[in-house]
Amino acid sequence: MSDAMGEFPVPDIEELPDDVRARIEAETEDAGFTPNVFAAFAYRPSHFRAFFAYHDALVEQTALEREEIEMLIVTVSGVNDCYYCTVAHGALLRIYADDPYLADQLAANHRAADLAEPHRTMLDVAVKLTDSPGEVDSEDIERLREVGFSDEAAWDIASVTAYYNLSNRMANFADMRPNEEFHTLGR
Amino acid sequence: MSDAMGEFPVPDIEELPDDVRARIEAETEDAGFTPNVFAAFAYRPSHFRAFFAYHDALVEQTALEREEIEMLIVTVSGVNDCYYCTVAHGALLRIYADDPYLADQLAANHRAADLAEPHRTMLDVAVKLTDSPGEVDSEDIERLREVGFSDEAAWDIASVTAYYNLSNRMANFADMRPNEEFHTLGR
Amino acid sequence: MSDAMGEFPVPDIEELPDDVRARIEAETEDAGFTPNVFAAFAYRPSHFRAFFAYHDALVEQTALEREEIEMLIVTVSGVNDCYYCTVAHGALLRIYADDPYLADQLAANHRAADLAEPHRTMLDVAVKLTDSPGEVDSEDIERLREVGFSDEAAWDIASVTAYYNLSNRMANFADMRPNEEFHTLGR
Amino acid sequence: MSDAMGEFPVPDIEELPDDVRARIEAETEDAGFTPNVFAAFAYRPSHFRAFFAYHDALVEQTALEREEIEMLIVTVSGVNDCYYCTVAHGALLRIYADDPYLADQLAANHRAADLAEPHRTMLDVAVKLTDSPGEVDSEDIERLREVGFSDEAAWDIASVTAYYNLSNRMANFADMRPNEEFHTLGR
Amino acid sequence: MSDAMGEFPVPDIEELPDDVRARIEAETEDAGFTPNVFAAFAYRPSHFRAFFAYHDALVEQTALEREEIEMLIVTVSGVNDCYYCTVAHGALLRIYADDPYLADQLAANHRAADLAEPHRTMLDVAVKLTDSPGEVDSEDIERLREVGFSDEAAWDIASVTAYYNLSNRMANFADMRPNEEFHTLGR
Amino acid sequence: MSDAMGEFPVPDIEELPDDVRARIEAETEDAGFTPNVFAAFAYRPSHFRAFFAYHDALVEQTALEREEIEMLIVTVSGVNDCYYCTVAHGALLRIYADDPYLADQLAANHRAADLAEPHRTMLDVAVKLTDSPGEVDSEDIERLREVGFSDEAAWDIASVTAYYNLSNRMANFADMRPNEEFHTLGR
Repeated sequence: MSDAMGEFPVPDIEELPDDVRARIEAETEDAGFTPNVFAAFAYRPSHFRAFFAYHDALVEQTALEREEIEMLIVTVSGVNDCYYCTVAHGALLRIYADDPYLADQLAANHRAADLAEPHRTMLDVAVKLTDSPGEVDSEDIERLREVGFSDEAAWDIASVTAYYNLSNRMANFADMRPNEEFHTLGR
Repeated sequence: MSDAMGEFPVPDIEELPDDVRARIEAETEDAGFTPNVFAAFAYRPSHFRAFFAYHDALVEQTALEREEIEMLIVTVSGVNDCYYCTVAHGALLRIYADDPYLADQLAANHRAADLAEPHRTMLDVAVKLTDSPGEVDSEDIERLREVGFSDEAAWDIASVTAYYNLSNRMANFADMRPNEEFHTLGR
Repeated sequence: MSDAMGEFPVPDIEELPDDVRARIEAETEDAGFTPNVFAAFAYRPSHFRAFFAYHDALVEQTALEREEIEMLIVTVSGVNDCYYCTVAHGALLRIYADDPYLADQLAANHRAADLAEPHRTMLDVAVKLTDSPGEVDSEDIERLREVGFSDEAAWDIASVTAYYNLSNRMANFADMRPNEEFHTLGR
Repeated sequence: MSDAMGEFPVPDIEELPDDVRARIEAETEDAGFTPNVFAAFAYRPSHFRAFFAYHDALVEQTALEREEIEMLIVTVSGVNDCYYCTVAHGALLRIYADDPYLADQLAANHRAADLAEPHRTMLDVAVKLTDSPGEVDSEDIERLREVGFSDEAAWDIASVTAYYNLSNRMANFADMRPNEEFHTLGR
Repeated sequence: MSDAMGEFPVPDIEELPDDVRARIEAETEDAGFTPNVFAAFAYRPSHFRAFFAYHDALVEQTALEREEIEMLIVTVSGVNDCYYCTVAHGALLRIYADDPYLADQLAANHRAADLAEPHRTMLDVAVKLTDSPGEVDSEDIERLREVGFSDEAAWDIASVTAYYNLSNRMANFADMRPNEEFHTLGR
Repeated sequence: MSDAMGEFPVPDIEELPDDVRARIEAETEDAGFTPNVFAAFAYRPSHFRAFFAYHDALVEQTALEREEIEMLIVTVSGVNDCYYCTVAHGALLRIYADDPYLADQLAANHRAADLAEPHRTMLDVAVKLTDSPGEVDSEDIERLREVGFSDEAAWDIASVTAYYNLSNRMANFADMRPNEEFHTLGR
């Protein structure tokens, strides 16, 4: 786990609190390797717990498809120039969407992706909320409703967007490095 | 609590899960009124729990003074044009810093505030991480170290900045309204 | 008056030309204190005269309500990150609009304010003219007409916006400091 | 004078107040034609008086050379994409600097102009104050001092910059049209 | 030819490959002087050939009028702050459009020019493609079609815009200097 | 070749001029498939010839390593949000640099890549020339010299950057689609 990030030291897994170590071990077993974001956030165990609890809340109770969540993440992370998140969630998007090209499209430019209108609108709003957070207003929620998203889905679209505006900043600041595996998974 | 936000309905407190209701009641007793961010996030109880758990982690275990945390929040929220956060945390900053003017300075422009060099550098880095999240690099952490911040403090500065980049986007998107009390508290 | 601005010395009022001193004394009597912008502009008496003559022309002969003028000023000053003008004119807006919250809303983000459509449009145009002065065209005047503003009012909206684009730059450059009184007046 | 601006009607000179008409006649005699900015501002005589009084103050009592003032104006007007001001003051700069090319250089890009270091620094600061009015701070004044400008000159540099941030916005908004003569004067 | 650019040495014309020298001689005979862009690109003969071959392709086989091509060039070069291209192609536009003012209008701000709707739309799309190359999409081509441009013309509008995004960057980087003649030709 | 781009029809290869068809056939034999940029540019054979002649000049006679050229292309194309170029040249970079990760790093954010100082500086200048073409000046060439690049190399760095500012705009405008093969080549 020592190469997980460039700017802060990664703690020895043996010295981590039990719950943090248990989560890392579960993720490692699940993926076949330890995704570096888990090693990196272990630098601050109290932040580790909060960060992943929020992530879990976003994917476990949601009005969105998992594929839509990963579309949002890759698009937002591309706008924020986040190497870790475009690569790691690019892999997840390839898997959840069962599409080997969509992640590369969204990481480069969501306008270049093959999208139905609701997803194009969803990503337009996410990009606006990312780039110009002071300019969103009720018309943006109205646009989401017009292409079929419920109020709950609109909240969830904003929440995923907002959460990855947090994640991208932590990953860029700490110089988190995506595992080699993520670059090819699902291609 | 019905005026807590403009874009989504606020649930009836009686119908909320026990832990969410208990937190709202504790906050209400503490402040003398229910800060609207608690009412607003109750729209999604699973997000409520994660959002406030992350907040608590940021203020409870930290290498920063609480006053510094609120300085970061007001500055970042000013950059992101967030009405809720500049006003609510402006009140907290007046109280924690025991300074009736600093919040108005930081909300307008941190360069106009009366700051010692370490705090000016801290806020310069926070503004860069907010406005240009792809441009931060190791020189920014180096700048923080040079004015005396530890590595832990640098991580915490980034974490508070990143978390309020999440919060500002949720508050702007949902049109959260700061309680009237926040406008005058600590003046 | 010695703390009126950070970057230039403030002249002794006794040594100022009679008309400049008279204006300062009248303002001081009117407000109960000397607003620092008067002390600051006394650095250059010829500019003092021109600056306040223009201000007087804008508020004395106008197709706008005084409340609308102050709404424009606070919004433009928020966009330009001007501490002096958001605070000093925030106080004036609270008084003229008889509203304790509107100034904090407009200083943060005019999209978060409780506005009727004509005022939202007025401020949208003012923000565009402030942020992108090369992009305004006849459609912007047309938008003002459509929500009921006369041609004279459109000119006046542009004039107030343009004048505070001057003022904000002088206040930021000279580091003008709002008087303590402005922070709480009208709350 | 009927083509002086595209968005507002130009009043009949015979119907203007005596002092406004007298100034227009004096300018017409001086230039050999009526510069359209005088015709345009006559739309609002009270603004006409204030606008030109401020202009006169800037050029009559100043620590700058007139050539430097026109260099500032053309540069700022280029940044703000102002057709009227780049062309009309381009002509004045050619005359005052006795240089047929400098205006075209500054209107396009002050970095492409043949400038001594003090003037390059002067224009760098003017462009920063124009484009990013919230980011100027004491280091910018320090830069001006280091290349030899007095405090009075620094104030005047900011004042000319700020005033043309007003003028450019009025000219763009009202669609003021430079007289044909300005395009070739001094070439 | 020694003053053709500020950053790189200009080769002696006698030492250039025959085809490059022949082209320069032909251009010199045609214009009555050697346009400095030919002298500058001779620094790299292989680039010289490719650069002017592309230029020739754009103007020789095209669905656009030559006047439209020069309108695009001056507008794009104004957006990119290119002194060489606004001045040299400003001269060409004055000649091809037989209009002494259009170039000054477009170099400053295409919104200030006297344009029929198809040309305003053409330049709006060119400015968008220049400033925000990731944001163009099929709606932009649709806008061109709606004002009467064929598919071939749309391709050519994009090609001229794209090519001058190359040219402007080379001219700015190498500090190419427009010949004195260009400043007055066609006025 | 029918899916090569979304906005314009791709001509039948049999109907193309001999030299264009020959080049396409040679590229197809070389790559094992027809890279879509060749099919797309065949829409305008005269542009096809000029575009690829310029490309050939950039890679055949150069002071840069081919690996450096592809690093520039992927970085610039990432800044310009170009799906075609990040993917197609990402494949070439993986091959020429014999590095399976560098392309994903540079497409996301060159600051996140593992680079020696000369390459970091090279890409910093390329990004500045791409994003702010009016702000480059002699200091940027000086920075390149200081890390060891010759004048010829500096010209070539600018040329590759400028040429892909052309290419990215054409690919985005025409909606060119990278071949499926490019997504995985060299991984």
